[in-house]
Amino acid sequence: MPRIVLGIEYDGSQFHGWQWQDGKRSVQGELQAGLSKVADQPVTVLCAGRTDAGVHALEQVVHFDCEAERDMRAWVMGGNSQLPGDVRILWAKPAIADFHARYSAIARFYRYVFFNRPVKSALARNQVTWCYEALDAEKMHQAAQVLIGEHDFSSFRAHGCQSKSPRRLMYFIDVYRDGDRVIIDLSANAFVHHMVRNIAGVLMDIGRGRRSPDWTEHLLKVKDREQGGVTASPHGLYLGGVYYPERYGLVYHPIFKRLPKDAKRFD
Amino acid sequence: MPRIVLGIEYDGSQFHGWQWQDGKRSVQGELQAGLSKVADQPVTVLCAGRTDAGVHALEQVVHFDCEAERDMRAWVMGGNSQLPGDVRILWAKPAIADFHARYSAIARFYRYVFFNRPVKSALARNQVTWCYEALDAEKMHQAAQVLIGEHDFSSFRAHGCQSKSPRRLMYFIDVYRDGDRVIIDLSANAFVHHMVRNIAGVLMDIGRGRRSPDWTEHLLKVKDREQGGVTASPHGLYLGGVYYPERYGLVYHPIFKRLPKDAKRFD
Repeated sequence: MPRIVLGIEYDGSQFHGWQWQDGKRSVQGELQAGLSKVADQPVTVLCAGRTDAGVHALEQVVHFDCEAERDMRAWVMGGNSQLPGDVRILWAKPAIADFHARYSAIARFYRYVFFNRPVKSALARNQVTWCYEALDAEKMHQAAQVLIGEHDFSSFRAHGCQSKSPRRLMYFIDVYRDGDRVIIDLSANAFVHHMVRNIAGVLMDIGRGRRSPDWTEHLLKVKDREQGGVTASPHGLYLGGVYYPERYGLVYHPIFKRLPKDAKRFD
Repeated sequence: MPRIVLGIEYDGSQFHGWQWQDGKRSVQGELQAGLSKVADQPVTVLCAGRTDAGVHALEQVVHFDCEAERDMRAWVMGGNSQLPGDVRILWAKPAIADFHARYSAIARFYRYVFFNRPVKSALARNQVTWCYEALDAEKMHQAAQVLIGEHDFSSFRAHGCQSKSPRRLMYFIDVYRDGDRVIIDLSANAFVHHMVRNIAGVLMDIGRGRRSPDWTEHLLKVKDREQGGVTASPHGLYLGGVYYPERYGLVYHPIFKRLPKDAKRFD
């Protein structure tokens, strides 16, 4: 049965997360309902990275199998005509046989956005995390660099995380200021549950001076979630993109050009 | 009675515009309700530029008179605690006696934002105007330059406009691309009704190649709204800031440094 890959953008603020839940509004539920209408048969979609309630996606990647023959333009335009305005299909591509949105992925890119001024944002209120104390982005960036490489991320891992291992390989993490925003861009082979939001909570406390910059190194060593920071709000978090082996011929965010040539998928 | 000046940010997408209307949600209505609670007495606010339904403000300026003595911090923090999340008070200042948010203004700055890619935006869907055809920002910028100076803007003026004169003095108009966005920044001493949205409609048609760049000059000459372009959507429009004589001691957007030193208020 032919497999199709889609790139998806969504505003997570009105969703109970990616995953379908009975009686709750989910991105998966809306996508499946819309694509099923285009296909004229039930469609089940699988994603690269399940996002929690309130979390957004600049580019989530999903796949589905479908016997209905439609050209790629029909999946994009027909699908978008069936979807609510807070989910958009950006592109569609036929998948090479063994492609799997989750298991074929080499790396994920996430972005975390702080809105840093004395007054909350009226215009981006559900799409940023407000911090009224001045953040020192350069200090946050320096403190974050120790996270690069392969580490045990237990201090940044939610209690309920179901992954077998707390070990992940971080490729890069950049913190920078853009006007009133302080942005964290980071990429790893995969992420334990709440890893980005827990890193954001720690860097926020370093950035506003409540903790010293060596706190990140300490947390890597102690491997203890109890000593970690707060889990920062979901509203500032974006799944920015997913990177796959070149042979799948997919479009991907240019930020992935920074990955090493020998980057391999997470097992 | 002491007069207070406020800078206000709002997301216009859930409002029937600035102006109070019975039974409809307005920015003025929400502000008056919130400030009245802080003042513990009825407060009436007047703004620099009334915005239509769906139009946003990066920095609207308003004033009100109130006998209640509150420090400026109380107006900002107390007011924000009483307001819904889509309106924020950015700052408060005591006004010099003759200050009037509308009549003291020397210039207004508006921003119009097109979202220019094949697929609509999920994340900014109520805060941009979608154009799926490629826009040539440089061509739009060139075509707009003829609007600078004092002109009769009848071709860009809504039929219902109640202003005495169609003449306005345009200080600058810049069109530029920022990623998927094409942005128009413009400032004039004042604006006739729908002037920015009507200019945006004309520049959009020039940018996507449906009209030639000399259309703007032609429209200035014929002074005929019937020959003008569409009124572009309110969702892409932002009141960006208002400029007052320096003696009022107000904060203002740095873009106003481009105004001539002898700029005078509109009569």
